[in-house]
Amino acid sequence: MHLTFRNSGQKASETELAFLKSAIAVENTLHTESDILQWIDSKKKATVITIEQVLFSEMKGWLFHPDLGNLVHETGKFFSIVGISVKTNWGKVPEWDQPIINQPEIGILGIISKKINGILYFLMQAKIEPGNINYVQLSPTLQATKSNYTQVHKGSRPLYLEYFSGEKKDVRILLDQLQSEQGARFLRKRNRNMIVEVEGEVSLHDNFIWMTLGQLKQMLHYDNIVNMDTRTVISGIPFGDYPAQLLELYGAFESIASSSSEYERNLLRSSLDRDTHLHETEQIISWITRQKALYELDVSRIPLKDVRRWVKTDYEIHHEEGKYFSVIGVNVEIGNREVQRWSQPLIKSAQEGIMAFLIKKIDGVYHFLVQAKLEAGNLDIIELAPTVQCLTGNYRKGLSEYEPYFLNDVLNAKPDQIRYSSFQSEEGGRFFKEQNKNMIIEVDDRFPNDVPESYCWMTLNQLKDFLKFNNYLNGNFLLHLRKP
Amino acid sequence: MHLTFRNSGQKASETELAFLKSAIAVENTLHTESDILQWIDSKKKATVITIEQVLFSEMKGWLFHPDLGNLVHETGKFFSIVGISVKTNWGKVPEWDQPIINQPEIGILGIISKKINGILYFLMQAKIEPGNINYVQLSPTLQATKSNYTQVHKGSRPLYLEYFSGEKKDVRILLDQLQSEQGARFLRKRNRNMIVEVEGEVSLHDNFIWMTLGQLKQMLHYDNIVNMDTRTVISGIPFGDYPAQLLELYGAFESIASSSSEYERNLLRSSLDRDTHLHETEQIISWITRQKALYELDVSRIPLKDVRRWVKTDYEIHHEEGKYFSVIGVNVEIGNREVQRWSQPLIKSAQEGIMAFLIKKIDGVYHFLVQAKLEAGNLDIIELAPTVQCLTGNYRKGLSEYEPYFLNDVLNAKPDQIRYSSFQSEEGGRFFKEQNKNMIIEVDDRFPNDVPESYCWMTLNQLKDFLKFNNYLNGNFLLHLRKP
Repeated sequence: MHLTFRNSGQKASETELAFLKSAIAVENTLHTESDILQWIDSKKKATVITIEQVLFSEMKGWLFHPDLGNLVHETGKFFSIVGISVKTNWGKVPEWDQPIINQPEIGILGIISKKINGILYFLMQAKIEPGNINYVQLSPTLQATKSNYTQVHKGSRPLYLEYFSGEKKDVRILLDQLQSEQGARFLRKRNRNMIVEVEGEVSLHDNFIWMTLGQLKQMLHYDNIVNMDTRTVISGIPFGDYPAQLLELYGAFESIASSSSEYERNLLRSSLDRDTHLHETEQIISWITRQKALYELDVSRIPLKDVRRWVKTDYEIHHEEGKYFSVIGVNVEIGNREVQRWSQPLIKSAQEGIMAFLIKKIDGVYHFLVQAKLEAGNLDIIELAPTVQCLTGNYRKGLSEYEPYFLNDVLNAKPDQIRYSSFQSEEGGRFFKEQNKNMIIEVDDRFPNDVPESYCWMTLNQLKDFLKFNNYLNGNFLLHLRKP
Repeated sequence: MHLTFRNSGQKASETELAFLKSAIAVENTLHTESDILQWIDSKKKATVITIEQVLFSEMKGWLFHPDLGNLVHETGKFFSIVGISVKTNWGKVPEWDQPIINQPEIGILGIISKKINGILYFLMQAKIEPGNINYVQLSPTLQATKSNYTQVHKGSRPLYLEYFSGEKKDVRILLDQLQSEQGARFLRKRNRNMIVEVEGEVSLHDNFIWMTLGQLKQMLHYDNIVNMDTRTVISGIPFGDYPAQLLELYGAFESIASSSSEYERNLLRSSLDRDTHLHETEQIISWITRQKALYELDVSRIPLKDVRRWVKTDYEIHHEEGKYFSVIGVNVEIGNREVQRWSQPLIKSAQEGIMAFLIKKIDGVYHFLVQAKLEAGNLDIIELAPTVQCLTGNYRKGLSEYEPYFLNDVLNAKPDQIRYSSFQSEEGGRFFKEQNKNMIIEVDDRFPNDVPESYCWMTLNQLKDFLKFNNYLNGNFLLHLRKP
């Protein structure tokens, strides 16, 4: 093991305390909230971008494989759209075919952090993706494919790659986890999510800005500003296993963040209490084990041309009933002086989606109602997901195969139960203007602790433990977890 | 989540303390060590068993699939021998084909435990498997296939199934984890390892015996008595996260187990120290993440008839150079009054294997040198394995593709470095008289802490954390972990 950690003997708590301090830092920061909003707005205004849906035959460099019908790039690079045939005993649909995005590489989503005036700042990028609503969203410092970071082929080298590739020596790794992307549309896709801390100077390129974690959190209150990848990386941040130390800091928090809502203060208090929980972690592991043992997921790759119940026209690939999503092709043009042009497929959702957590105070500590959900692209059968997650099926009654549990609790929530609500985007490099409603709904004591077999109440601390040892949480889950 | 745990609010530590007490109980037990040895011996003597290698065409119920050439049972049940084609950038062999056992179901390996005179006893079975050296070995209370426990088809119901199926209500789950079987020969095979505690009466069938964990440990000092499945289940047992409480108990241990070796006392002391370790858990996760991001494993199922460099005769399927293993067919006959007869394929190893850990005291605490190892059947690219694991290749110099790291340290270990050495069997239901040498070798301060990229020093406590959150440890690893 060649350590790339600089201080190998250091207590994890120092890092965690630094994260926590940054998470509550929203005042006296390098930039104010409105500075950042204006900066993003100026980037949007400076962006000249054209996205045009075209016939598949008009996409430069992309073709349908003559034998298999898969939608591939002529170099074999980037990603492809392939078919899968799924059999499972989970849920009410025992068998289906579908198109899916195949991109077997593990990419890096990396954020550089640096202490400025004693507070940890994160280097965020205003990044243009063709599928983004608003075009420009805050993304990690680096989004690199494996070809980028292993330097298999030359090509344009991404900015700041050297901080994540091991080339720069004066770099401390604060976070380094594999996490999956959403399993309904990606075939076993995973990213390596990294946060590194740098002590020396970091050059600030155009389109980059330093923000605290607290400021990133503020941005999550606006629709479609923080991109999917950023949300995934920051949701992996741990705040510590040292209740005593943290409780001390909590006093500081009370004074610093007195403007926080009661919900946020309760959430922080809950996350500092590691002893209170409805179920022991061993019981939760047993629950997951049972789900994995009971449910089978048999996914075979099939040629895209053989996918049953999907129709390919010159213009799109869609489900015969117009359900779920379609695959389209776009031509993209970005820039005003140096113009970049390319073609690519995008996934276009057939309807709005919703992701929501029910939360409940149990013994004074917030518990999240977590679902063990099977999706076709999952590496290991089931992953943990929000209470309600309807991304790929219409969730209005009668329009879907079945109505998910707890959907009514979410759709009929009273305003005073809604702790969080905003629209957040799917990854704009693959998804066309897709946004999902993200909600946190608080239920009271009348809501039962006893829930159906595939659901479980867990505290934030327990979620973090499962997050640490990867492959337990699905992508949609991560982006939804707002840290105190 | 329907809790099958009876005391949901109970501290995990009570269970862990019960495990620990049982692990040190070797005196004043229901049976003495020699009682148990004699009992096993009497079972062996009473066993009438004939195993005969036959032509594939003489196996009743088994055939080669007419199109694919896979070796399958005519009912489609049990397991099958299929082909895989493997591509990887790990190790020195970038591409190969091989036969592999395909048994996609998750089975249950379950042990019933019960407090007798305040000590936790485990109900072990003297079980006959055709491939066992000695024929009879101590196995878990229950080994059930999924068809057994979901009752898909009627058939002989295994004894004690009701304690693991949820039918019996007065049962507490102490352990419930998914763990993988060895990835070089099983395609993504996993078992659900369970230990349950029962308070009421448990009827004692013929061929079953109550033993403490300490006594099971004693049996591990003998060659080929404790079977693979038992070793896997007991290696998942946690001994607690409560140093203070355990240290108190440690005083008791010193007096009770004063006959233990210095090594065993050091090991226990090490396992009670959660604060001392060369690397933080977060660093180890980062190390594993990096390995998974760097190494690719592309496994495709292929027809057994298309497996390159393997030869099928009427009598066996073997590698063209006689390496690795062969697939044979046997007829089995068990019993004297009621005779059971069946045919089945078995895997026959081409040579002896070795599995060894190097251990070293670092800051006074034992660390285990762990390898991140890629095997074709792994669910997630790499798993953690012993320092040296040569199961499927001849490890003598010049006879293999390459010489594993640290092999010389194991083969040339001096007697006073050898902390443990015995022969242990592979699963006798699939493997023909295969045993591997299991060793623990202690190295001193002259041995470096800095090790090659795919190795890492970890404490027993850290190993247990990875064990808890499954899919990190490979089967061979588990069986090797002897608990204090």
